[in-house]
Amino acid sequence: MAVSNIRYGAGVTKEVGMDLQNMGAKNVCLMTDKNLSRLPPVQIVMDSLSKNGISFQVYDDVRVEPTDGSFMDAIEFAKKGAFDAYVAVGGGSTMDTCKAANLYASSPHSEFLDYVNAPIGKGKPVTVPLKPLIAVPTTSGTGSETTGVAIFDYEHLKVKTGIASRAIKPTLGLVDPLHTLHMPCQVVANSGFDVLCHALESYTAIPYNMRSPCPSNPIQRPAYQGSNPISDIWAVHALQIVAKYLKRAVRNPDDLEARSKMHLASAFAGIGFGNAGVHLCHGMSYPISGLVKTYKAKEYNVDHPLVPHGLSVVVTSPAVFTFTAQMFPERHLETAEILGANIRTARIQDAGPVLADALRKFLFDLNVDDGLAALGYSKDDIPSLVKGTLPQERVTKLAPRAQSEEDLSALFEASMKLY
Amino acid sequence: MAVSNIRYGAGVTKEVGMDLQNMGAKNVCLMTDKNLSRLPPVQIVMDSLSKNGISFQVYDDVRVEPTDGSFMDAIEFAKKGAFDAYVAVGGGSTMDTCKAANLYASSPHSEFLDYVNAPIGKGKPVTVPLKPLIAVPTTSGTGSETTGVAIFDYEHLKVKTGIASRAIKPTLGLVDPLHTLHMPCQVVANSGFDVLCHALESYTAIPYNMRSPCPSNPIQRPAYQGSNPISDIWAVHALQIVAKYLKRAVRNPDDLEARSKMHLASAFAGIGFGNAGVHLCHGMSYPISGLVKTYKAKEYNVDHPLVPHGLSVVVTSPAVFTFTAQMFPERHLETAEILGANIRTARIQDAGPVLADALRKFLFDLNVDDGLAALGYSKDDIPSLVKGTLPQERVTKLAPRAQSEEDLSALFEASMKLY
Repeated sequence: MAVSNIRYGAGVTKEVGMDLQNMGAKNVCLMTDKNLSRLPPVQIVMDSLSKNGISFQVYDDVRVEPTDGSFMDAIEFAKKGAFDAYVAVGGGSTMDTCKAANLYASSPHSEFLDYVNAPIGKGKPVTVPLKPLIAVPTTSGTGSETTGVAIFDYEHLKVKTGIASRAIKPTLGLVDPLHTLHMPCQVVANSGFDVLCHALESYTAIPYNMRSPCPSNPIQRPAYQGSNPISDIWAVHALQIVAKYLKRAVRNPDDLEARSKMHLASAFAGIGFGNAGVHLCHGMSYPISGLVKTYKAKEYNVDHPLVPHGLSVVVTSPAVFTFTAQMFPERHLETAEILGANIRTARIQDAGPVLADALRKFLFDLNVDDGLAALGYSKDDIPSLVKGTLPQERVTKLAPRAQSEEDLSALFEASMKLY
Repeated sequence: MAVSNIRYGAGVTKEVGMDLQNMGAKNVCLMTDKNLSRLPPVQIVMDSLSKNGISFQVYDDVRVEPTDGSFMDAIEFAKKGAFDAYVAVGGGSTMDTCKAANLYASSPHSEFLDYVNAPIGKGKPVTVPLKPLIAVPTTSGTGSETTGVAIFDYEHLKVKTGIASRAIKPTLGLVDPLHTLHMPCQVVANSGFDVLCHALESYTAIPYNMRSPCPSNPIQRPAYQGSNPISDIWAVHALQIVAKYLKRAVRNPDDLEARSKMHLASAFAGIGFGNAGVHLCHGMSYPISGLVKTYKAKEYNVDHPLVPHGLSVVVTSPAVFTFTAQMFPERHLETAEILGANIRTARIQDAGPVLADALRKFLFDLNVDDGLAALGYSKDDIPSLVKGTLPQERVTKLAPRAQSEEDLSALFEASMKLY
């Protein structure tokens, strides 16, 4: 059960220059994306760096939903800059890009695929020391400020994969709720769905002592180790916050209380899934966003088709939890109740449908598109979606129930329409 | 909100040799006490070190309830050994001694008082790098495997004080419930009371955003920063486990489930109070154990009078929470309910007495001695007990309500008899 350092509070971002000075940093790489680079969160960081006399260079070419190509561009920048510390200001895309840049700049003779998860990459353990990285999340979903995971689209295969190692976990996350006030409502909703699924998936993942293989040397154990007594606590608390505050946070951009709570929930769920892992919603989400055709999410200012990560994750959740509930049905019922279902008269064998109904109602209330069909997919796409899920075994094998290709096919089919 | 790395599970101690090998350690210091040195937890560690080809020296002169003298003896051993890693196997006394040995051996030109908490010491921030330290707790109370605190008796002044810095937090805690089966029942009870008070005090401590002073540079902020949304979660979970399992764990040495849960609760409460801090029960406990006359706790195999730490902490708890409940009465009622009180008809202004009654009932059921009088103290000792509490401002100032010397006097007087 590894851990994460976060500091939470309105205004903590202003302290980043002091933190870097305390770490002895003199030449810092500030990573962000083009949209954020003109907004207050980045300004505050730059002011704090200047005020503390710290030299820095800005890299603002982070791609929303990064690719191996965009990772490599950032890595080149990092290698040239010979930085002694990093600050990432943005959502998961920015934090993940910065983790990769720090890793490969610290290990300059590695091939890109060396550290990428098997079977796509070689999944080599990280043994080089990295530079300090401070993550400042500006969305409330990824929890990337607390995890050792960096996700990207591997364009050659059209699948999402990533790098997973405790070594790339940020040194410190500055969780500053003031940044959430800049988020468009759709971004709040979709990033909140990511929190929802981090919590549900990590809580229903296979228990840590039932996972196999179980390498005898601790260093060979995966970052994602199955549900455990510590991750359970984070998952349940994050889910309670999502149930209570997500709708308010989406509907009213000025609801600082609701947006603050969601910002904390994102970190809570991150600490939970960062230890326990996620499973089918995430495993199946990667081809859903990777194979996007023309769908462009509202309120996302990007120049390419995009299914936002949280949306691609949540869209299969009713089907997934109907499928997994036969294992650990009590946990499925417990989460349904947290989401507002009345489970007093529910039978244990109905745990799956009860949770699925609670999820459908929750998504309907938040105007989520009606299933994969509304995101541009048809039945003809199911074989490709299944094929794109198969390489995600790092997460799919953490599902409490094993899946055949037919099972995955049926899950995508059941997710074509939600309501 | 800083964090702690722990690995939990029956048998995880066997992995310590691999962990040290993974850290590159070649010359390890194994610290323990004379009682434990012949028992399985130490044997398992030695076997694992040998099996992994790691050289080590054993220091088994740790004193139960350590002093500045016993710390310095361990520090000398550490300096001479030039170790590249440490393993502490034991209770809080052993883990704390090992933290101090690692610190001063890594900072050989420091005076002993340099890092000791002000006002007794200079409270200097730690800037030197320390060696890895793996902590293997064999009691279920201190949570020291998760904290950056090392407590000792400063003999010259006859008060307890300590060293508090995130830098001395163990690199890894191996929380192995198998070790709890070796604990005498009285040790289970007293260490459980420490968990109880860690949880109650950290949950009722002054909130982190109301603490003063609030240094602008994060490095100057104390390890104990007041209650906060993360420590609250740990405190409540630890308290729930204490309420459900402590009596079972005390009464039946073979109840592995109950003893395992208490071992985990100890770490949970440690993560909580390690961030939030403790307050009056702990602040007042230090003179209670430091000024001990002839009391010798049953089932503790020591050659000197001893009020075990957990007992010295819990004995004032009914008086303390009666005093503090006017601040945050809801939290006091909530914890009373977790301990079994019926709060349906309780009035908010009765929160203090309601919690105090729940505590008295809990302690009576566990055969706790009837107050300070039963530990050998009389009214005549109150001025010395108050005098010994005053230097504990590092913790007492975290109480939700400020205390005058008269208040402290009244709290000791009210703790003379419990039932």
